This record gives sequence, structure tokens and C-alpha cells, in this order.
Amino acid sequence: MNIGIIGLGLIGGSLALASKKYTLGSRCYGRDINPTHVKQALTLGIIDEELTDAKLPQMDIVILAVPVDIACELVLTLLDNLNDNALVMDVGSTKTGICERVSVHPKRNQFLATHPIAGTEFSGPSAAYPELFLEQTQILCETSFTRPDLLEWALQWFRSMSMRIKEMDPKAHDQHIAYVSHLSHVSSFMLGKTVMEKEKDERAIFDMAGSGFASTVRLAKSSPSMWTPIFKQNRENLLEVLTEYIENLSAFKNDLEQQHYDQLYQTMEATNAIRSILAGINENNTKNNN
Amino acid sequence: MNIGIIGLGLIGGSLALASKKYTLGSRCYGRDINPTHVKQALTLGIIDEELTDAKLPQMDIVILAVPVDIACELVLTLLDNLNDNALVMDVGSTKTGICERVSVHPKRNQFLATHPIAGTEFSGPSAAYPELFLEQTQILCETSFTRPDLLEWALQWFRSMSMRIKEMDPKAHDQHIAYVSHLSHVSSFMLGKTVMEKEKDERAIFDMAGSGFASTVRLAKSSPSMWTPIFKQNRENLLEVLTEYIENLSAFKNDLEQQHYDQLYQTMEATNAIRSILAGINENNTKNNN
Repeated sequence: MNIGIIGLGLIGGSLALASKKYTLGSRCYGRDINPTHVKQALTLGIIDEELTDAKLPQMDIVILAVPVDIACELVLTLLDNLNDNALVMDVGSTKTGICERVSVHPKRNQFLATHPIAGTEFSGPSAAYPELFLEQTQILCETSFTRPDLLEWALQWFRSMSMRIKEMDPKAHDQHIAYVSHLSHVSSFMLGKTVMEKEKDERAIFDMAGSGFASTVRLAKSSPSMWTPIFKQNRENLLEVLTEYIENLSAFKNDLEQQHYDQLYQTMEATNAIRSILAGINENNTKNNN
Repeated sequence: MNIGIIGLGLIGGSLALASKKYTLGSRCYGRDINPTHVKQALTLGIIDEELTDAKLPQMDIVILAVPVDIACELVLTLLDNLNDNALVMDVGSTKTGICERVSVHPKRNQFLATHPIAGTEFSGPSAAYPELFLEQTQILCETSFTRPDLLEWALQWFRSMSMRIKEMDPKAHDQHIAYVSHLSHVSSFMLGKTVMEKEKDERAIFDMAGSGFASTVRLAKSSPSMWTPIFKQNRENLLEVLTEYIENLSAFKNDLEQQHYDQLYQTMEATNAIRSILAGINENNTKNNN
């Protein structure tokens, strides 16, 4: 089983490591736009060989683990050059764009759109580890368009990594994920920006900031190269969500201005219901270094 | 050494436990508006006895670990009823109000305003643990108004818990803390509210939300009884900070609307500098269950 990984970052690298750990006889080939990442991935044993163009037709599986705009560009060329029994999968945080892109390709049935809900704020091969996907959700889109034998292999592969499979329409995926992931990133980036603009003296932040601040701005460490294309591809959904978030913040600000403290109390109390939702998420993440 | 704790929540309970662990011969007396908390604190060995009015004059130290509005009410009565060598400390997240309140009391020099930068999103005696303050910052205000021998005892006490002491003007404290703590809480509460309003189907959130979402909305689990009075007392600073946060979010939204992706990229890249600040915070929190 030859597995090609394009993009040797956190997700690509971890998929390679998970594959080596859980799938007998898998040999991993990798490439990355950054030559240092290829060297690191070889040194760390993430890949066995570099993935050259000449070796592409020998791959059984190819994973596209690159920013979503690049994935949309590469996927067609990849399908063109694969052998007739290979499967290509992307792992991006937006699904509508890539599903539209492949829709009329003659080898559409050799493609599977996936979104593993897993990650940390760290990037690059050194951030990869094989247990990243353990008990995490794997969202698959348009599975009926994938050739059944290739889909079945992919399902087995994800199950071997102990992922929980969920199917979803690409448009529904992009709408939901704007709420539970993309908005968190914008919220965190802007929180970091607001504090850094005001608190020029970093030492003061360091001394006074506790774990609550660290938790809310953690995602502001995320890679702009990865997130700019995601925001671009999910622009409409994110704009809707951002509008609602800003409205809620403005309503909170208005209540504070008007000194409507009972209203503030009730709003916070109602939001405490998030506890039960978070309990489920944390339960799933206890084994992960997130 | 008799230590009285008023409010047996996370902070009060943890101070009692830390005192028992690190200060020889300390005996802890406690009270709480919630009788169940008193029973729990006795059962868990957080306090040795209930703190009755009759026992107040026997206390050497009294800690006010209650919501900041109640602290402002209680502190004067407490000072009235303490013996002439006792010290009262509050632990609230706002400092201007309480410092003003005690300013003309004849026993002002038996009061010390403190803000231990420590906590989790959990509350009640069962959340308390003795290492909560290890390597965390303790902010002290107006120390020159506290009797030197009492101040010295307090400094030793905090050092015994391995806290890092920092002095600060109460107004400066309230302004800075609005940025690095109070804003994070509002941001998190409103993020939780926005997602819950839209995503009526909690199961969908649970399946799609990863550790990033969990991290950014963690503070939305915080107690409204504690936070409403904090927002009330720090209203002006928080309004200023919230205005800047909303402006930054609106600018981000505008860039997205106008498809100014280079600008979005640059904004996120500049905000990545938060890494170095967070590195310091995380280093301090590694031993804490935060």
C-alpha cells in the first residue's frame, strides 16, 4: 500500500504517522512546497521517500493536506495523473469548493472529500503525531459519488485510526463549521489584536494574563497561510456568523451601557448551557494533546 | 494562626487548602451563603470549623472571597468587628471600588487589596485545590496603606504558596485586567451564545466542534453571579475595551466583504506575535489544572 501525502504539515504528517502505526505494510511518500519540511519528515520517519511526479502513478492513496485554495488547484491534475485504482482525498476545512471543482472530472469517483475535525494550533512536520485523530470526528461529503470499493477502503482506514465517521452535505458542512470553528478563529485573532494594540508593554500582559486569556487567544497562533483561503472559500457563511457575533457583542455592550445587569446575568446564565456540549468535546479530546 | 474564609468557592477554598499545606499551625474557619458549601468544605477538610460571628474577633486573617459587590458591602462590617491585630484581604477581580470603600475606615491599615491571577472555570468547594496559586501572579494594591507588619505577614504567606508578587495602582489594575481577563469572558460568553442560537441541534455542534471551539468558549461556563458584579464595577474600562474589540471584528468583517485577503493575511500574521506572550503564560500554568 503506497500512500502519497501532499503537504507535510500537522494533518498530512499525522495521517502518515497514523497510517504507519495502524495500517500494515503502508509505505509513505511525501512532498511539500517547503524543502525543509520534506527533510524534516524524512528525518522524523514520517515519510519513507520523497514523492516525485514520476512516482505518482504508483500511489494507491493520495492525501491532499495543503491550504484549501491550493487543494482546489491540485486536485484535478492529481486525478489526471493517478492510476485507475487510486483514491485521492482532501482534508480541508471547507468542502463546497472542492466538491464543485471535481464534479465533472471523468475520475470523480476516485475522489473522496474529508474533513477530520482534529488539530492543534501548531504546524509543520514536527507538530505531527499518530494519535491526533483518535476518537475524533471524520466528516465525509458526497460519498455516493466515490467508487464503493475505494470508499470502503477509506472507511476502514479511518476506523483503524479510531475516527468516528459522519456524512454530511458539503453546503451544510460549510455552514455549520463556520459556527463551530471558523468563528472561533476570527474571535481569537481579533481578541489577540485588541489586547496587543492596547497593551504595548508585553510584560504587563504576561504578568496579568491567566489561563482564561491564554485559552481564548490560543487560536490566534494559527497559520495565516492556512486560514486566509478558508475564510475566502467560506466567505458568505462566515460573514453571516460574524454579523450575528458582532450583534450579540453589541447587545451585551448596550446592556452594560444601560446598566441592565439583570439582562446580562440572564444572558450569561443561559449560555452556561454550553457546559454539557463542551463536556462531550472534552471527553473526546482527553487523549489528544490539544 | 486562625484564618477565616468568607466564601468557600474555588479561590476561598484553595486559599484554605494552600494555607493548611504551606503554613504551619494554621486553622481554617469558613462561612458561605450556601449551607451546602459549608458542609462540603467541612467534609473535604477545607475548613476545620464554621466561622460564626462570635468567632470573628479570634481571627488573625480574614479572606473575603465572595463576588465583588458583596465584598464591598462586607468589608466595612468586617473591619469593625476584627481585633486590632488582624488583617482582612479581598481577592476580587476589580480593585478600585473596594479600595475607595475602605479608604476612610479607621482600620484601613488592617486591609490589603489582592487579586490572585488564578482560577479555572469551575466553582464551589469541590473545585478547590492547594496548588491553584503555584507560580501565579498575585497583584497587590495600595500596599503603603497597610500596616507594615501585617503586609509583611501577607507577603510571606503568598510566597509560601510560591506566588509572584506584583504591586499596582487600583485604577491601572482595573484598566489592564479589562483587556486580559474581562474581555476574554465577554468574548467567550457571546461566542457560546451565537453558536447556541444558531445550532439548535446540539448533537451537530458536538460532532463538528473540536478542541479549538472548546478552548475559545471555555469561559462561557463561568458563574454569572461572580461575573455580573465584576462587569458592573469595571463598566467604564470594559465598555472601552469592548468597543475596540467590536471595531476590530467589524474591520475584519469589512475586509472579508471587500475581499481584501492580503489585509486579512497581514492582520493575522501580525497577531501571531501573541505566541511569545502565550508561551510565558503557559509556562506558568503547566503545573496547574487550568
